[in-house]
Amino acid sequence: MSSGDMRVVPVILSGGSGTRLWPVSSDEKPKQFLNLTGPRSMFQLTLDRCVDTEFFRNPLIVGGTRHADLMEQQLRESGQNTNAIILEPCARNTAPAIALAALACENPEDLMLVMPSDHVIANNDLFRKAIEQSVAHAHESWLVTFGIEPTGPETGYGYIKQGDAIPGANGSFSVEKFVEKPDLANAQSMLSQGGFHWNAGIFMFRADSYLAALEEFAPEMLSAATDAMNAADRQDSFVTPDETKFALAPSDSIDYAVMEKANKVAVTPMNPGWSDVGSWDSLYDISKKDDAQNAVSGSVSISESRNNMVHAGDLEIAIKGVDDLIVVAEGKTVMILPKGKSQDVKQIANEHKNSSQS
Amino acid sequence: MSSGDMRVVPVILSGGSGTRLWPVSSDEKPKQFLNLTGPRSMFQLTLDRCVDTEFFRNPLIVGGTRHADLMEQQLRESGQNTNAIILEPCARNTAPAIALAALACENPEDLMLVMPSDHVIANNDLFRKAIEQSVAHAHESWLVTFGIEPTGPETGYGYIKQGDAIPGANGSFSVEKFVEKPDLANAQSMLSQGGFHWNAGIFMFRADSYLAALEEFAPEMLSAATDAMNAADRQDSFVTPDETKFALAPSDSIDYAVMEKANKVAVTPMNPGWSDVGSWDSLYDISKKDDAQNAVSGSVSISESRNNMVHAGDLEIAIKGVDDLIVVAEGKTVMILPKGKSQDVKQIANEHKNSSQS
Repeated sequence: MSSGDMRVVPVILSGGSGTRLWPVSSDEKPKQFLNLTGPRSMFQLTLDRCVDTEFFRNPLIVGGTRHADLMEQQLRESGQNTNAIILEPCARNTAPAIALAALACENPEDLMLVMPSDHVIANNDLFRKAIEQSVAHAHESWLVTFGIEPTGPETGYGYIKQGDAIPGANGSFSVEKFVEKPDLANAQSMLSQGGFHWNAGIFMFRADSYLAALEEFAPEMLSAATDAMNAADRQDSFVTPDETKFALAPSDSIDYAVMEKANKVAVTPMNPGWSDVGSWDSLYDISKKDDAQNAVSGSVSISESRNNMVHAGDLEIAIKGVDDLIVVAEGKTVMILPKGKSQDVKQIANEHKNSSQS
Repeated sequence: MSSGDMRVVPVILSGGSGTRLWPVSSDEKPKQFLNLTGPRSMFQLTLDRCVDTEFFRNPLIVGGTRHADLMEQQLRESGQNTNAIILEPCARNTAPAIALAALACENPEDLMLVMPSDHVIANNDLFRKAIEQSVAHAHESWLVTFGIEPTGPETGYGYIKQGDAIPGANGSFSVEKFVEKPDLANAQSMLSQGGFHWNAGIFMFRADSYLAALEEFAPEMLSAATDAMNAADRQDSFVTPDETKFALAPSDSIDYAVMEKANKVAVTPMNPGWSDVGSWDSLYDISKKDDAQNAVSGSVSISESRNNMVHAGDLEIAIKGVDDLIVVAEGKTVMILPKGKSQDVKQIANEHKNSSQS
């Protein structure tokens, strides 16, 4: 290796613009920048996982141009430095975004730890242990994924089937196959078979391993990303790849473009209390609750009510005698729906948008 | 009679400060001044019942000093004149308030039609018919009450039992007795017996009949009201009785102080679609509803939901998959409770107030 610095480069993917936590999340302020689980946003909690400078270098951040100020501000609040904030000039999904980060690494052998910025991990020690356990494999050119131990037959996640244990490895496996989001029967079948893990979208590999895989399986994407980075605009810590050149990259996820095709793909199972906070129901699951199993935040007075998720935002909410509701206020908007139905949020947001315009 | 003007003097009681429609109603803006049932407030709808200048004189209004501006403004919007707005310097319930109005009448023989300003009457023609039918009795010194045909065993209203038909009368009866708010069994018993009516708090009598009854049954109240009016401050249409003198009046309702004691009390049954709008549930009952029996006002998008009462105020509310809820927003406050439970509103308001202060 040409670099003496063996420390891991955190690559924080912050391009998401989820509407699944409407009305709190929005295109202007997506989920990762909200402090839904405590005083710090999920973006900041992701930064917090990488503060150990003996193990991590400064993070590389990849996000959308419209969130440049948010990222810089939340980074500054965290008191952390960054190698670069790479601003995607247009959205091309995760495979090209990670290509930009790989090209921004100082050395080809740098180890990248790619993490979405909008997940919650309850136990950082267990997470760190899984990373440490995977470092050697990544150095040996494995593309490492991290698999979450399933707690139920979830149909909202992709699954990873482990294959043989990697020789000499302490709990990592080669990947036998990736399984797209299953129906319930398939999810249950995988659970009972065992050896399947949720795909958390967290990866570790050398920059040159990833770029080599791109060259083999997605050469147009690699050349578009390379050309865009060569013509990038650089101001302070912001790096803005050339838009016209980057737009030539096919839009694809790292799973489809690389992981499902490459041969030397590993999975390190872990159980660090991971949640993708993909819905109000899943936020309820990881939230602190009162004795009546209500998860409330903000100015809420609640009595004779059970199992409610109430987020008051800047409003004041008074509830009595109501069970199993999700009540979310943000700005001047209040959303009410039954618990277990938060997959309907996108539709509700659209109906609300249409009715507000009419 | 000394006066040639036989027209009825509407006396509009506007001193109520109900909190039963919290968070929309407040001490600053009680129910009668809100436009909950349409573009006009219940105070204005009450004025609207008296616009026929062939039958009515200008109304006398009795209300609280803190609502002087509201009353004047809503009166002006209605384009109606008033004989006087009498401002109660302190709250002493309905009997003293009506005494102030009786003392403000130009002639002792003037016919007063006393009406709360916070009720809704759907069919004004039927109401007017009941009034016309009672004019002769009132002229003959009867204290006339108006009884509402019960539609169910309501426990929230007082009842009036009719006695004999008044000789020569077309549907009015002497009152056999007043019944205080009953329990359910008594309410059901009265319904099955027949001849019982809800006490709507609407009355018609000559000013001198009322004052004579006060002299007989509540002489302290009469002298306090008389002294207070003699020392009243008069500015434009506002009449403010002397506070110290008025404070000497015992606080009592017209029912307790006069009606239950007087002998010549009549009841004219009517069925004009009356509601006291005493709760969100009762407002729901008289509101227009969509095909799914939702009564909504303001910016509300609602789907797959039935039997809800949703009042958005200045907020925007999106609801999906929820049944039988009352959702009321006002300013920055949102209240949520099950339908049929709106008697809990006062308690919710208190809990909310306490939790906001803590």
